[in-house]
Amino acid sequence: MKLVSYVADGAVRPGALRDDGRIVDLGGLAPSVLALIAGDALDRVRALVSDPATRLAPSAAPIVAPIPEPRRNIFCVGKNYREHALEFGGSGFDGGAKGGDEIPEAPIIFTKATTSVVGPFAPVLGWLDPDGQVDYEGELAVVIGRGGRAIAAHDAMSHVFGYTIVNDITARGAQKRHKQWLLGKGLDTFCPMGPTLVTADEIGDPAGLRVITHVNGELRQDAPVSDLIFDIPALIAAISQGISLLPGDVIATGTPAGVGIGFSPPRFLAANDIVSVRIDPIGTLENPIH
Amino acid sequence: MKLVSYVADGAVRPGALRDDGRIVDLGGLAPSVLALIAGDALDRVRALVSDPATRLAPSAAPIVAPIPEPRRNIFCVGKNYREHALEFGGSGFDGGAKGGDEIPEAPIIFTKATTSVVGPFAPVLGWLDPDGQVDYEGELAVVIGRGGRAIAAHDAMSHVFGYTIVNDITARGAQKRHKQWLLGKGLDTFCPMGPTLVTADEIGDPAGLRVITHVNGELRQDAPVSDLIFDIPALIAAISQGISLLPGDVIATGTPAGVGIGFSPPRFLAANDIVSVRIDPIGTLENPIH
Repeated sequence: MKLVSYVADGAVRPGALRDDGRIVDLGGLAPSVLALIAGDALDRVRALVSDPATRLAPSAAPIVAPIPEPRRNIFCVGKNYREHALEFGGSGFDGGAKGGDEIPEAPIIFTKATTSVVGPFAPVLGWLDPDGQVDYEGELAVVIGRGGRAIAAHDAMSHVFGYTIVNDITARGAQKRHKQWLLGKGLDTFCPMGPTLVTADEIGDPAGLRVITHVNGELRQDAPVSDLIFDIPALIAAISQGISLLPGDVIATGTPAGVGIGFSPPRFLAANDIVSVRIDPIGTLENPIH
Repeated sequence: MKLVSYVADGAVRPGALRDDGRIVDLGGLAPSVLALIAGDALDRVRALVSDPATRLAPSAAPIVAPIPEPRRNIFCVGKNYREHALEFGGSGFDGGAKGGDEIPEAPIIFTKATTSVVGPFAPVLGWLDPDGQVDYEGELAVVIGRGGRAIAAHDAMSHVFGYTIVNDITARGAQKRHKQWLLGKGLDTFCPMGPTLVTADEIGDPAGLRVITHVNGELRQDAPVSDLIFDIPALIAAISQGISLLPGDVIATGTPAGVGIGFSPPRFLAANDIVSVRIDPIGTLENPIH
């Protein structure tokens, strides 16, 4: 099942994307995708989607982020692909790293503000970065279903509701200058998310997914999720050791090598650039830079 | 005006604390203190409080955190008092610092998870820290009233709704190990908040306030808010440069010298310790460690 949030009559409604591209309206079940997750309503969603008399969204209904208003900040993971950790460590932009500790020994967890979330095709306001050092980070994101604290790694996958894509847009100068990463990572529009939220049953083992990022059609990132240093069970276990995870929490799992600061000189994003992050079967998350 | 959240009939309700210690029920105006802030309802609150026929809360109604369920993570500031920055830098627990950069040149902003918030007298679950390195950080916290992005420092105080106290409880080992501070700072119950939320008009210039922390009655922290490296207008300007602040957002402004890792050897909190943070006229925020 691919869940989406779409706009009709000026309101955001939950929906399910069918194979024919039409969206089944789920507004009768819950007011939002977040409420669907919290309400454990997947069985009712399935019944509605397979009902031939079901109500469809208008065919050109615009899609927004699947969870456009998260209940709290997005959890994010830093330096979680080996080659990226090395390129970041060598870039001079890792304000916290001492030489030799490029590969983290424990997961590096920070957050992006709720107000950073935007949907597919929404502009990323690159001009919010006074340094002109805006960078992309294509990432697989996990959405939590059943909440909990002290979730064991061997039980973690049963807490996963599904998967989406996050582009962890970063203002590199601010990331370095402020040491802790919120101000470099949490800016308005700096968290494109979507296009769909694919339920866990449709993905199976997420290690088999591949993160592919293009800038203006040029391939920049291409890596299997199996390259994660801390895999999804390890991340859920580490975060939930002390922090109760809640239904609908989003964990962006980190980005592979190939970001702009991995080039010498760095290749930052500029106005009118188009960044697209593709992870099949979630889809392609494309956003223009303004 | 001192706003509180209190419990009656199993539900959390907003209230105003009178000088005689009784709480005026504000549940007829809004469902929560957060909704009161977002609804710009202070004038109606004042009218209700001065009405002799107003409804009072039960006299022994328990107080919880003024904003017990924040709409997103708590914004926090690291190393924002000079003497504390030096004690932290010298402690060996600042995983991100290289020698010589103890005093930050730009505000260090991180977050605590929403689920870390508890109220006065609620236990802090110190046993959640597997390292046994739990520390206190008494702090003045600013609550945003009118939201906005790119708020200029000279206009920032007009966006302040009021002030409360936050104890930025920290698991020092996790703070160091995970580099970014969420996992060391965001644990369940690690953000005691309260007891009251005092409106800005009743405080005047917050630089005149004093943060005083005791552990088991022993004085540990005592510093004027005027010692802040980045003052409240500077913090609001820095955060809102790229992140839209929302009504009800909480910004904990940083802690003065005197935390447990400032001692040699460090004096971590242990079960049955009592930590109290006092800032007049907000009150005293007291919590036991479990």
